[in-house]
Amino acid sequence: MAGQFYAVIPAGGSGTRLWPVSRAGRPKFLLPLPGPRTMIQETVGRLSGITPPENVLVVTGAAHVEEVQRQLPNLSAEQIVAEPMPRGSGPAIGLGAAIALSRDPEAIVGSFAADHVVTATDRFVQAVRAAIDVAGQGYLVTIGIQPSYPETGYGYIRAGQPIGAFHGIEVCEVDRFKEKPDAETAADYVASGEYLWNASMFVWRASVLMEEMQRYLPDLADALTRIAAAWDTPGRQETLDAIWPTVQDVTIDHGILEPSSRVAVVPASFGWTDLGDWHGLGTISIPDGSEPSENLAINAELLARDARGNFVFGQGRLVALLGLENIVVIDTDDALLICDRSRTQEVKQIVEELRARGSTTLL
Amino acid sequence: MAGQFYAVIPAGGSGTRLWPVSRAGRPKFLLPLPGPRTMIQETVGRLSGITPPENVLVVTGAAHVEEVQRQLPNLSAEQIVAEPMPRGSGPAIGLGAAIALSRDPEAIVGSFAADHVVTATDRFVQAVRAAIDVAGQGYLVTIGIQPSYPETGYGYIRAGQPIGAFHGIEVCEVDRFKEKPDAETAADYVASGEYLWNASMFVWRASVLMEEMQRYLPDLADALTRIAAAWDTPGRQETLDAIWPTVQDVTIDHGILEPSSRVAVVPASFGWTDLGDWHGLGTISIPDGSEPSENLAINAELLARDARGNFVFGQGRLVALLGLENIVVIDTDDALLICDRSRTQEVKQIVEELRARGSTTLL
Repeated sequence: MAGQFYAVIPAGGSGTRLWPVSRAGRPKFLLPLPGPRTMIQETVGRLSGITPPENVLVVTGAAHVEEVQRQLPNLSAEQIVAEPMPRGSGPAIGLGAAIALSRDPEAIVGSFAADHVVTATDRFVQAVRAAIDVAGQGYLVTIGIQPSYPETGYGYIRAGQPIGAFHGIEVCEVDRFKEKPDAETAADYVASGEYLWNASMFVWRASVLMEEMQRYLPDLADALTRIAAAWDTPGRQETLDAIWPTVQDVTIDHGILEPSSRVAVVPASFGWTDLGDWHGLGTISIPDGSEPSENLAINAELLARDARGNFVFGQGRLVALLGLENIVVIDTDDALLICDRSRTQEVKQIVEELRARGSTTLL
Repeated sequence: MAGQFYAVIPAGGSGTRLWPVSRAGRPKFLLPLPGPRTMIQETVGRLSGITPPENVLVVTGAAHVEEVQRQLPNLSAEQIVAEPMPRGSGPAIGLGAAIALSRDPEAIVGSFAADHVVTATDRFVQAVRAAIDVAGQGYLVTIGIQPSYPETGYGYIRAGQPIGAFHGIEVCEVDRFKEKPDAETAADYVASGEYLWNASMFVWRASVLMEEMQRYLPDLADALTRIAAAWDTPGRQETLDAIWPTVQDVTIDHGILEPSSRVAVVPASFGWTDLGDWHGLGTISIPDGSEPSENLAINAELLARDARGNFVFGQGRLVALLGLENIVVIDTDDALLICDRSRTQEVKQIVEELRARGSTTLL
């Protein structure tokens, strides 16, 4: 039987495509999107049915440690790791495995980004339980999301040979990972029924990940093992500060899962979105991903007249829409964003232009 | 030679199509549109080159007298008439003529709505001077605006036989008045070159108007004459309160000018709009009336990315527009309106819906 289950929460990224709500000082995972709890609170909360809070490790930027601690009072200061500098999600996820392994040779570790949305927690728990069992058999497991529409902003996973049923879910080996496709390719993927969205949601035995890391990313494996060895000693911070800046900024998907032959995928559907942009938030309440005929308003009193498919994220004010379709309205104290729904990816360019203009308060 | 020139300013109407800036307690003429001075301040101010301030009479609702007085400190309390109840512009304009006539048999009176926009004051003054001279010859004079595009929200005036040149302007008799046309008819009117917009801007000898009123609206003429007779006596308010509620709510255009054969029109072009809706404000800065390719922002920091023809009226905040064309954004403290530019006439239905919802603060 497997050892204890540990969860690593990489909490990075600024979410500039969610401007003007997301700012440099308040990244996406610290915000109540879609609310009422913040994204990192939701992320930790939905794991409570799987593992006790003391088995959760959050890895975040030094600037956000205090706020993360405030938002997650059940976690001890030791469970919130301050990255000396950003190194992407790969080292953070790997560190979780290295630490777990140093404490428990049989540990199972899962990694869950702090800024994704899951609307069906029961099905999420079912999928993670399935992934834990599959990981117990020695697989590196990724949870793949049944695509509900041909999204071009996600990578895809092609499922391969079936492994068996776990907690009622038919699990497969991974045939291959695919980069973000163009629209036509995405449509083909979805039509084929063979592809899943890559949600970068992983479960594995810590020992298996470290073995594969030793094979494909040996420098990273050595660095993380050295940090983990010092973790439960007074030298923790000093070791972290010395080694972290030298580790490679790499994702686990590219660095380990793509070359490895021990990868399985648990297909699942639990109302997931990575909330990469405002369009994503607008689709949360539309489980099948089809275009909404009605309007969606969060924290706003909406008055719509001949208006369809609009999404409003407000600050409590009345918002009246007249004769408009498929626009996104984001209303904050000091900035108002109005944007065509198909263009929400470009909000980051708005932020860049503000930066170029020398704005300080609005970034 | 003509007598003194008096100006009557009917200041009525709520301007619900300019919601959410215009509210019941702050009608259009009291607002700084397009700013920086309020519309009634601009209206009185642009007459200063024609007549001294003591010759101006404002007729407004009792609820607005105090604010009008505050905005127009050069006017005495006597020059601001509180209507006991709204009776439309006709009785207000007529009252100005009746009072002027009681003081000066040769008086010339002009009427200028408190909530219209004029951007070229010099040409406005030229047109009014021309109208004063034509009125001196016994005509009821209307100033007609050269149409710059086929607006369906205005009435039209067809010019008839030329009368002569006054202050460099060729003045004509009026052939006929036309109601607000449909789009096709409006296009024909503009293409013909024979039609002008009816701006309800009038100049006449007080005696001539009262003669024609006696012919076509004798009850109104009698009522106004009785009020005017009491005007410079202690019985003014009592007489006004007693008679005003009985007078007919009629416009001068329909009641007198259309049947009369003594009507002339001064064609003019001075950047006029009645600012009936938000689209109108957006076109003020575009003298030829063509659709703007750029965006117009009043009181807002605008950041536009692939956005054209949009109009923003703000409250100082940053407004970022991405991938949008021809929308109107009106940003106030407690309400945000976003509307297709072609639908701004329907803003009054938004106000009606708010009323139906029982809103009090937003109306």
